[in-house]
Order: sequence, then C-alpha cells, then structure tokens
Amino acid sequence: MTVPPKKTRKPAWVIDKERARRASAAGTVWLFGLHAVRDALANPARSRLRLVVTKNAADRLGDAIAASGMEPEIVDARVFDREVPLAPESVHQGAAVEVRPLDWGRLADVAAAGTDGGAEGSRPLIVALDRVTDPHNVGAILRSAEVFGARAVIATARHAAPETGALAKTASGALERQPYLRVVNLADALIELKAMGYVVLGLDGAGDATLPEALAELPGRAICLVLGAEGPGLRERTRETCDRVVRIPFAADFGSLNVSNAAAVALYAATRA
Amino acid sequence: MTVPPKKTRKPAWVIDKERARRASAAGTVWLFGLHAVRDALANPARSRLRLVVTKNAADRLGDAIAASGMEPEIVDARVFDREVPLAPESVHQGAAVEVRPLDWGRLADVAAAGTDGGAEGSRPLIVALDRVTDPHNVGAILRSAEVFGARAVIATARHAAPETGALAKTASGALERQPYLRVVNLADALIELKAMGYVVLGLDGAGDATLPEALAELPGRAICLVLGAEGPGLRERTRETCDRVVRIPFAADFGSLNVSNAAAVALYAATRA
Repeated sequence: MTVPPKKTRKPAWVIDKERARRASAAGTVWLFGLHAVRDALANPARSRLRLVVTKNAADRLGDAIAASGMEPEIVDARVFDREVPLAPESVHQGAAVEVRPLDWGRLADVAAAGTDGGAEGSRPLIVALDRVTDPHNVGAILRSAEVFGARAVIATARHAAPETGALAKTASGALERQPYLRVVNLADALIELKAMGYVVLGLDGAGDATLPEALAELPGRAICLVLGAEGPGLRERTRETCDRVVRIPFAADFGSLNVSNAAAVALYAATRA
Repeated sequence: MTVPPKKTRKPAWVIDKERARRASAAGTVWLFGLHAVRDALANPARSRLRLVVTKNAADRLGDAIAASGMEPEIVDARVFDREVPLAPESVHQGAAVEVRPLDWGRLADVAAAGTDGGAEGSRPLIVALDRVTDPHNVGAILRSAEVFGARAVIATARHAAPETGALAKTASGALERQPYLRVVNLADALIELKAMGYVVLGLDGAGDATLPEALAELPGRAICLVLGAEGPGLRERTRETCDRVVRIPFAADFGSLNVSNAAAVALYAATRA
C-alpha cells in the first residue's frame, strides 16, 4: 500500500478525489468513521476487503465486527494514518474499512421496482443529478432520497461525486441503503425513464411553471426530478430531454437554494402532491 | 496582526472556530472569496475595515471596490496567506475583507416587521436553531430562510455557528441580507415570540403530529420553526417551550434528514400550507 504524504498543501477534497480515482482504478474505496464503518459492516451486500481499527474503535464496534465475520487489523492510533490511505483531516475515529462500490444493478430494474416498502399509494420517484460533484451535497441528497422513498439517485459515471469515504460520512448510512446509480449518459437515462412512464421534471429558477403546479397536473404519475450543479445548472441536452422545466416557488426576489436543499424540497413536494 | 502557523494538524473547522473567537474578541471577522467579498462590499450596512486582494482579484472586483469607496491593499498571491489570517484550505480566490458582524437589531423589531417585501399574504416565519454549530449547515439555512421569506434565523450567542468566512461562503450572499440574530437564551426568545403571537413548532422525528397537519390547523398564523443539532436534537427546555413538537412526514422507515435539508423542507411546507 502506498503511504500518503503526511504534509500537503492540497485541499482535502482534491486529495479525496485523487484517492477516489486511485481506489477506483483498484476497484475499491476506503470508508471511515465509526458510523460509516458500522453501516458498511452491517450491509450484507457490501464486498469488504480490509478492516483497520484502533483497539478503542474495535471495542466500540465489537458487535458489528463479530456479526460481519471480518478479521480486524488492530493498529496503534499513532500509526493509523500511515496504515490507511485517507485524506488529511478525515475524521476517521480510528476505524476504516476497504470495500468495493455497491452494485445496484440496472436502472431499468431499479426504476421498475414495486412500491412495497414505500408508503401506501406513493408515486415512484427518482432523482437525477447533472454534474453535482460535491460529495457533501450528494451525501445529503442520498439521505433525503431515502427518507422520501425515492427508488434511486442517478448520476453520470464521470463528473459526479464518486462513492468515497467523505460521501459515505455525509450520507450518514444512506449510502448503504439508497441506490446510487452511475450511468454513462444522463440524457439517455432520462429517455429510458420516459419510456418507462416517468415524467421528467428539470429544476431551474427560470422554469415556466412552479413544481407544485406541475405536480398537481400529474397525480400519481412516476416522477424523475433533475437537478444541476449550482452555477452551471442543467446542461443543454439535459434540459432539452426534460418533459418540463419547473421552479421551486420562492417568496423572495433574492437568493437561491443549496442544491441538496432544493432536492429535499422537491422530494417533499413530490410526496405531498 | 498575528501570522498563523503555516503547517498545522488541526482540522480546518477548529481553526476557523479559533479564529472566529479571536476575531470576535477584536470584534471583527474576515470574509473571503470573490462572491462573499463582493456581497460584503455591496452591503451598505457592513462596517468594513481592511480589504486585501491580489491584482487579479482586484481586477475582477473592480466595480464593487470602486462603488464601496474602499482602498484595497494589493498583495502578491504568494504572500496572501501571510497577510490575511484565514484557516488553511480556505478557498479565498485572492480576496478577503475584514468586517464587523452585522447588527440586525432587536428580535422584537425584526419579528414584528411588516410583510412588505415578502409575497402577498405570506405568514410571518422565523427559524430558531438550538445549538446547530456547523457553519455549512447554518449557511445553507440562511439561504433557505431568505428564499422562503423568513424574517430571521435566530441562534444562541454561544454554541452556535459564529459569523465566519466559512459561514459567509456557504451562505452565498444570504449572510448580507438575511437577519441572523444571536440571543442569550433560546427558550426566553421563544417565549418572547409566543407573546408576539408566534406559534412555536419544534421539529423532531418523534413529534406527535406531522408538520403539514399542524400547519393546516394554523392558517395564516405566524410560525417559528425550531430545529436542533443532529444527534442531540432539541434540548429539554427548548422542547418544553414549544407549543407543539411535530415531525416531517417520511415515506421510509429508515434514515434522517440533514438539518439544513429539514429546515428547507419545513420552510417550504410553511409557505405552502
């Protein structure tokens, strides 16, 4: 294993991205922090390679480790950073597990899944992210998607937040449970969803109608909510592929929502309409 | 001015907090990044002390600097970090301005303000934060509060996210426009709001009714939404002071919302009910 340089001037998210790229070349990723490690250990769908913990963390994760059947590598807290290739300033709490990304299967299967498990009469929901690269935003969106019963969050294979430790930590367990599918081409995926009966609603401050107005005209219909990155917004082809471009109704003339906040509001609106 | 140590093992947010404490002792704070600096320069209510910019940033902020009447200190990009006491990894883009925190006045005045400027017939709204300390969450909440027309976000003077550069950056301009009031005692502030006619709704996953149910029984009433930090939630006295404790309706049995996402959903729900 390569030992990361101890002192660096690169910001943590750059290093996180570089590690993600390297781990993705190896096909693995390091998840860290007691919460994220416990969730990964508890997930039977997770392929796990190495578990590195301090004595203290091993005690705190005792039941989860025993249930997982993994043999932990106990390391001294002072050398933890040398054993595990994490970005500097990662709040690892003495626990890290090397895993393979989850395989959520094909979009067609996930999107077509039944409503069992969701609230009765709930409409099928999917969130599509157009180049949202910040892992904290995507992590928060996975949480909201889970809470509001979305079948999947989809993003492009490139120019999206990769499944990293930082994302897992922000997702607070949702990464293990909420399907997060990466597709080669987002517009093609939206066309596939349209063919399955989804109405694709792009979110943009310049939308011609409000989201609740659009939803009121689509009772019970399956909805795919598409959000772009802050600043650039939806790309041209993404926008053209949407059935409608709608806006969240604002009370003020100023300001804008953080993208994860916009996603949470849109998901809530779609479950209430 | 003290020059910060160049190499440190403390996480950025700790340093940000320490600087905030030091700056708050001096009564000032450094805002950084082109967007935040431009917004601070454009805000007539901002008391500004020093403006430190690289040549490149000075060019990009040309109009804003001219309009502000400030005399910028132009520094070489290589020594910027030594001139300005920012946390390591702050994405300052060669621009920083030392300012005094905004004075939003008394809660009673802000809470009693007319609805002019808001949407017609909109109900008075306030967001109260009980020990939400993460500046990124509070920054995002200020954005949502502005967008949904809340009169103020209130937090305690201690154990809350201070008005720092990191908060300003996440708030994406909203810090300059959205009243963010710090009170000595949150429960006392809630009691004051109740006396003014506000219905105080605490948000908690264990709430006895859902937020939309509670709002439906309170048409047009002024609402104060109270949110606690993730994990600890609302403190005992905060909870006891609420008129009602309500929950955001979830479709899933698992998971939880990020606190800024919960605030956005609650604000949206309150503007739509």
